[in-house]
Amino acid sequence: MNKFILTEKLKPLLLEDLQFGDLTSEAIFQASDIGEATITAKADGILSGSSIIPTAFSLLDPSINVKLFKNDREKLAEGDKIASIEGSIQHILTGERVILNLLQRMSGIATLTNQAISFLNSEHTRICDTRKTTPGLRGFEKYAVTCGGGYNHRNSVNDGVMIKDNHIAFCGSITEAVEKVRKTIGPMVKVEVETETEEQVKEAVAAGVDLIMFDNRTAEEIAHLIKLVPSHIITEASGGITMDTLHTYQHSGVDYISLGFLTHSVQGLDMSLNINGGI
Amino acid sequence: MNKFILTEKLKPLLLEDLQFGDLTSEAIFQASDIGEATITAKADGILSGSSIIPTAFSLLDPSINVKLFKNDREKLAEGDKIASIEGSIQHILTGERVILNLLQRMSGIATLTNQAISFLNSEHTRICDTRKTTPGLRGFEKYAVTCGGGYNHRNSVNDGVMIKDNHIAFCGSITEAVEKVRKTIGPMVKVEVETETEEQVKEAVAAGVDLIMFDNRTAEEIAHLIKLVPSHIITEASGGITMDTLHTYQHSGVDYISLGFLTHSVQGLDMSLNINGGI
Amino acid sequence: MNKFILTEKLKPLLLEDLQFGDLTSEAIFQASDIGEATITAKADGILSGSSIIPTAFSLLDPSINVKLFKNDREKLAEGDKIASIEGSIQHILTGERVILNLLQRMSGIATLTNQAISFLNSEHTRICDTRKTTPGLRGFEKYAVTCGGGYNHRNSVNDGVMIKDNHIAFCGSITEAVEKVRKTIGPMVKVEVETETEEQVKEAVAAGVDLIMFDNRTAEEIAHLIKLVPSHIITEASGGITMDTLHTYQHSGVDYISLGFLTHSVQGLDMSLNINGGI
Amino acid sequence: MNKFILTEKLKPLLLEDLQFGDLTSEAIFQASDIGEATITAKADGILSGSSIIPTAFSLLDPSINVKLFKNDREKLAEGDKIASIEGSIQHILTGERVILNLLQRMSGIATLTNQAISFLNSEHTRICDTRKTTPGLRGFEKYAVTCGGGYNHRNSVNDGVMIKDNHIAFCGSITEAVEKVRKTIGPMVKVEVETETEEQVKEAVAAGVDLIMFDNRTAEEIAHLIKLVPSHIITEASGGITMDTLHTYQHSGVDYISLGFLTHSVQGLDMSLNINGGI
Amino acid sequence: MNKFILTEKLKPLLLEDLQFGDLTSEAIFQASDIGEATITAKADGILSGSSIIPTAFSLLDPSINVKLFKNDREKLAEGDKIASIEGSIQHILTGERVILNLLQRMSGIATLTNQAISFLNSEHTRICDTRKTTPGLRGFEKYAVTCGGGYNHRNSVNDGVMIKDNHIAFCGSITEAVEKVRKTIGPMVKVEVETETEEQVKEAVAAGVDLIMFDNRTAEEIAHLIKLVPSHIITEASGGITMDTLHTYQHSGVDYISLGFLTHSVQGLDMSLNINGGI
Amino acid sequence: MNKFILTEKLKPLLLEDLQFGDLTSEAIFQASDIGEATITAKADGILSGSSIIPTAFSLLDPSINVKLFKNDREKLAEGDKIASIEGSIQHILTGERVILNLLQRMSGIATLTNQAISFLNSEHTRICDTRKTTPGLRGFEKYAVTCGGGYNHRNSVNDGVMIKDNHIAFCGSITEAVEKVRKTIGPMVKVEVETETEEQVKEAVAAGVDLIMFDNRTAEEIAHLIKLVPSHIITEASGGITMDTLHTYQHSGVDYISLGFLTHSVQGLDMSLNINGGI
Repeated sequence: MNKFILTEKLKPLLLEDLQFGDLTSEAIFQASDIGEATITAKADGILSGSSIIPTAFSLLDPSINVKLFKNDREKLAEGDKIASIEGSIQHILTGERVILNLLQRMSGIATLTNQAISFLNSEHTRICDTRKTTPGLRGFEKYAVTCGGGYNHRNSVNDGVMIKDNHIAFCGSITEAVEKVRKTIGPMVKVEVETETEEQVKEAVAAGVDLIMFDNRTAEEIAHLIKLVPSHIITEASGGITMDTLHTYQHSGVDYISLGFLTHSVQGLDMSLNINGGI
Repeated sequence: MNKFILTEKLKPLLLEDLQFGDLTSEAIFQASDIGEATITAKADGILSGSSIIPTAFSLLDPSINVKLFKNDREKLAEGDKIASIEGSIQHILTGERVILNLLQRMSGIATLTNQAISFLNSEHTRICDTRKTTPGLRGFEKYAVTCGGGYNHRNSVNDGVMIKDNHIAFCGSITEAVEKVRKTIGPMVKVEVETETEEQVKEAVAAGVDLIMFDNRTAEEIAHLIKLVPSHIITEASGGITMDTLHTYQHSGVDYISLGFLTHSVQGLDMSLNINGGI
Repeated sequence: MNKFILTEKLKPLLLEDLQFGDLTSEAIFQASDIGEATITAKADGILSGSSIIPTAFSLLDPSINVKLFKNDREKLAEGDKIASIEGSIQHILTGERVILNLLQRMSGIATLTNQAISFLNSEHTRICDTRKTTPGLRGFEKYAVTCGGGYNHRNSVNDGVMIKDNHIAFCGSITEAVEKVRKTIGPMVKVEVETETEEQVKEAVAAGVDLIMFDNRTAEEIAHLIKLVPSHIITEASGGITMDTLHTYQHSGVDYISLGFLTHSVQGLDMSLNINGGI
Repeated sequence: MNKFILTEKLKPLLLEDLQFGDLTSEAIFQASDIGEATITAKADGILSGSSIIPTAFSLLDPSINVKLFKNDREKLAEGDKIASIEGSIQHILTGERVILNLLQRMSGIATLTNQAISFLNSEHTRICDTRKTTPGLRGFEKYAVTCGGGYNHRNSVNDGVMIKDNHIAFCGSITEAVEKVRKTIGPMVKVEVETETEEQVKEAVAAGVDLIMFDNRTAEEIAHLIKLVPSHIITEASGGITMDTLHTYQHSGVDYISLGFLTHSVQGLDMSLNINGGI
Repeated sequence: MNKFILTEKLKPLLLEDLQFGDLTSEAIFQASDIGEATITAKADGILSGSSIIPTAFSLLDPSINVKLFKNDREKLAEGDKIASIEGSIQHILTGERVILNLLQRMSGIATLTNQAISFLNSEHTRICDTRKTTPGLRGFEKYAVTCGGGYNHRNSVNDGVMIKDNHIAFCGSITEAVEKVRKTIGPMVKVEVETETEEQVKEAVAAGVDLIMFDNRTAEEIAHLIKLVPSHIITEASGGITMDTLHTYQHSGVDYISLGFLTHSVQGLDMSLNINGGI
Repeated sequence: MNKFILTEKLKPLLLEDLQFGDLTSEAIFQASDIGEATITAKADGILSGSSIIPTAFSLLDPSINVKLFKNDREKLAEGDKIASIEGSIQHILTGERVILNLLQRMSGIATLTNQAISFLNSEHTRICDTRKTTPGLRGFEKYAVTCGGGYNHRNSVNDGVMIKDNHIAFCGSITEAVEKVRKTIGPMVKVEVETETEEQVKEAVAAGVDLIMFDNRTAEEIAHLIKLVPSHIITEASGGITMDTLHTYQHSGVDYISLGFLTHSVQGLDMSLNINGGI
């Protein structure tokens, strides 16, 4: 994660929890009471967002010192130390909740993504995300998907064309929709089409799109449809695929499987921050 | 949800997905292509966040017309129409994803809260949330908890004192921590203490705190400890309570059970937006 | 004052005075002309906001060095040196006015609060503020009240319930208003009721509110009414109390006296910044 | 006050008091409970900031209707109705405090300015303000000064040159300071010099500045010094002038007297908002 | 241009020119002085940004009425009326400069793009822009390029991969750079490579990139190199191409020519706003 | 340029190009890959904006080290090294485009201004800018004009009065317009009047304005009109003056010539950033 972007995005998130200040920590501690804290994993998983720890604490107090014991993308086992933090106890506790909220969510996403990859167990097919992210946290969540081994689909409606059923219906056909789009988009924009029938797959191929999405299809259906698609067109399976059915797509040959649940239904990875004592 | 606050909070969330514009919708539709869309529930649950629909669409296009068929706090059955939207198809599709992302998350939280209340099945004990919310969305998520029938714990570290183990350890005792806090806080601030032993409960009572939290306790332990607490002190059970163990707390007598998973591990409630056709 | 919050709040205040730059200082000085300046009290009072000096100057120029001779809450006598500042004269003069404007206002509030406490001269009764603060500066002003020895009432309409005459009239009675409120608020929220008659005080006690406010009452009236209130309910006198009448409340027994004039009618404490010379 | 600027500046001020919402008003009222309220003057003075009432309420709720009975710059007598507001009681009460805080402060400034003009009682000499305004509210406060009949000195350090003692000392003389400034400033910028001696006045005249400020001078001293200044140079008296000494400057002949206390030590003009009842 | 994005982007641009208000217009006119104004082209060109006129004026004053006589992408001849504006003269004049500054710049870009297309005079080759836009105005300027008939290259470094000489040098070869990139990017991201030699073109083809850019090449060189590139790879000529040399690329066969000067060296299209008189 | 203002203004400009991150640089480089880069002039001109280089890079990565070889206002010859940058190659390349876009634009403005001064070749007459700047970049562009040797006219409509034809027509005459303005403006505000006839010049002189602008006049006409204006009134020629006609104004005697094209039609000064290699 780019540190400048991270810094600017963390500011409003810290202020949301702080408002005018932390009543408890400011009543109990002096800013000059120094101590050491540890962030520890309380479950197994994949780490994501570790750079939030030093960045957020340095916003709250530049004199806080953070040592990271684990890097993003690394496996965490329950009990693993992720980071030690040395500095003002008041400021450490003030930042605790927001930092853990982000870190747990991101590590939860990385872990879930990694599980999906294991369940799929395919050498060819990649897992990717969708735009079903938490509003305001897209950058954090899309990065977390990559930490788990997944790939990012569109970051916004501005960096790729996705022609869906509503667009096709309005234009009359995939051919006409693609033609309309080609009139306005520039050279760096990819065009993907959502297909629901074999006819549509054929039409999309003929229209020369960059990606073809098979909407709500079983692995068998995809294995069949994919034969209609030349290798330079990327294929994507999307819709209705769960952790339980992922393994059936192992040999489907599809290039990407996009999973909305990676980001819209996150189980945070449990972590704790403990003060080890004063110094 | 206060509409002014909602409006100001929605703006950056819409811009996150839009960036410089919606390539697909702007290529396919004219702003003047008018149509009608419906938002439909695709699972059973409780609705929360319905005012986002008219507010977000009116930011995107003041001429879009939204009719709500369901109100917040109402039950949704799969297939229920939540809202119909009439206006520029381009602008409807541009807002679709962000609106659904929020609505599904909030309704997921409301639904989960409601399930927790059913599982607990207590006339006395209330369910409440924690600060383990998604950074940036605390206002949305805390409101969703209330739509499910739950209550809000602190909105920020600025509107209540919560004395935890780290504070107690630093001060030496609950008594000393409470005394220290009383020196600085004003008349509208409540003081809650986290307790881990019977001795601590007694000490907290003697210190005259406003709330006592039983940390990581079974229902039986709480039923015992609660006898030490006079009725004007509010009690809260927190930590380690799951959907599976909630029912054991039915007759524990505790005033509030706070559940971090209500907001940190949300399963979005599935919904869809479909264009019914042009007009 | 939390330094992170302070930094973020100071930025727009500095930019308000700077706009595109400081014409005079930039015309006269090079950024590299180094000098030393002193901030001096020009009247007796209580200091508040001293951390603004290093924080604001380090925003303008991280190489400026500030030494503080006085801490917040300390007494100032006319002529006392508050701080010395070493660094670019151009940048020191550019920040001078905004820093003094804030420091004088905050110290004025602290001084006034301290005078109020002296005039009241009560061992039991505390002075607190109201929401009659300068829009945009609530955090600064509420902190200044605590520097003078006062306490903070609500920080916002979001962190406490205050049932006033308009609410009571609408609900029909205090009892009904309190009941209505209890249905929605969480465990950390206190409920205060404004009372105007003895009947209302009794009703508020029966309704089990957390605080009872006596609106526009003399010390004698309060001494009488307070007997109706059990000790675990906090009492507050508010409305119509001036510096001149404060002493009459010395033995009234009320817990808090809230004074709007502490923040809405501030006499800034005079200070000056003088350049001692180049280095 | 320009309504666009006003709108953008009001937003953060309203959010400061609202945070996540108004607990009391939202618990007691439905947004659809309609009523009528009146804003009334509780003291004599001059009105300033009346456009804040409709602008702020329309941010909170565009369906609220405001009728203004008094315009800015008009005299208010205790008991005068300033405005009536019709609409959602919840939203009216939510905005009450911030609106009154601003209105009272601005009307207080207008009233004070007006008193200063009366005390001065001069046909020639104008009263003006300084940059000793409340950080964040300069636009509001400078406008209020004009409502009271005063004039605005610099809005920021960016729209005028003010050469003070520190600048003169650094450059060696007024002559050198003015020369230095002339090298960089453009045609629309005025240059003012602070003078402390007769020699400096003469030097400033010779240097061809646009304004000469007499610092900390009695009316008699000014009457003498002013004879040295040709009529096309504007003169200003500043420093140490109080309400009590203003009248002595009646015939001093100085063009402007600048008074820091107009904005740094404001006594808010008392006002109240009362709900007249439901509709 | 999406109106919501436009609105949010216009606000700071208007405030930049307004600061605390428009001294002249507010001194001369009452807000209620109504008049009519016309925006007229003072040179021939292509219109871009017309929606800025109603959007900006409605921010300044919702009661201002704008009628557009020309649409974006339309030809303008000197003297053509672009829009008439009816409403408060004060508010019309307050917005004039910022609106014209934007409109002239955008129309200048559209006109220049259109000229480039004419000079190129190719049925096959398209003109596109670069990221050499004015910081802060990328959305405005990229839209203006499309109004002139051009296409948009990357909107940001986040929506496409562009492998340049520095990247290739670091990785050792195009092949290695592309491999490295493929490991992290998702399915919607295109990869472009900058090539300087025939060897590099061949290597890029073998690496299977989406676009190949010929850096600083004459039309003849490109006509030769392009034979090495299969038709499903998009080609782009970039660097050193001027208005004078564009026509030589007419039959080069390259897909896109990107021109930095379209946005980094803009000649604004002259326009004026005239008040026709009061109403 | 004030560094604090610069920092705050650069943030959104960097984020505009970065969005969620730099796909290419983050795919190719580790943040820890260190190298050295040079910014070199590719054309002759005047440097402006050099402090953007260290300020922007330190936002992106505080460990990047920048050495400046040229200062603002200095002449650049093609091939001159402007700065060397040492640090993370990833972060250097991420900032490259935005920094160059600004630097080239500002240096282009400084160069153009300088050329205008050379072409004018007058000892008396100064060149100044207008408000025809790029929205959002006024501070940058006005500073660049001064680097080229020019002067700044108004920074905003808030720091000077400019009475134009529309105002005069509405008021009836220059005399009446000036009188109206004098009633509201403070002592630090200058009043300029646009004149189109000899009569108007005489009227403006009689009205005692601070500046008289000759609109669309030849040098000969101005040489004549200027005799009507006493020396303490500043004169400005504006409108219709081009690089080609500037020299004719050499001996016109006018104080300032304002040139809109200095900022509205900028030819960026070409520069490049090259990575010299790893370290």
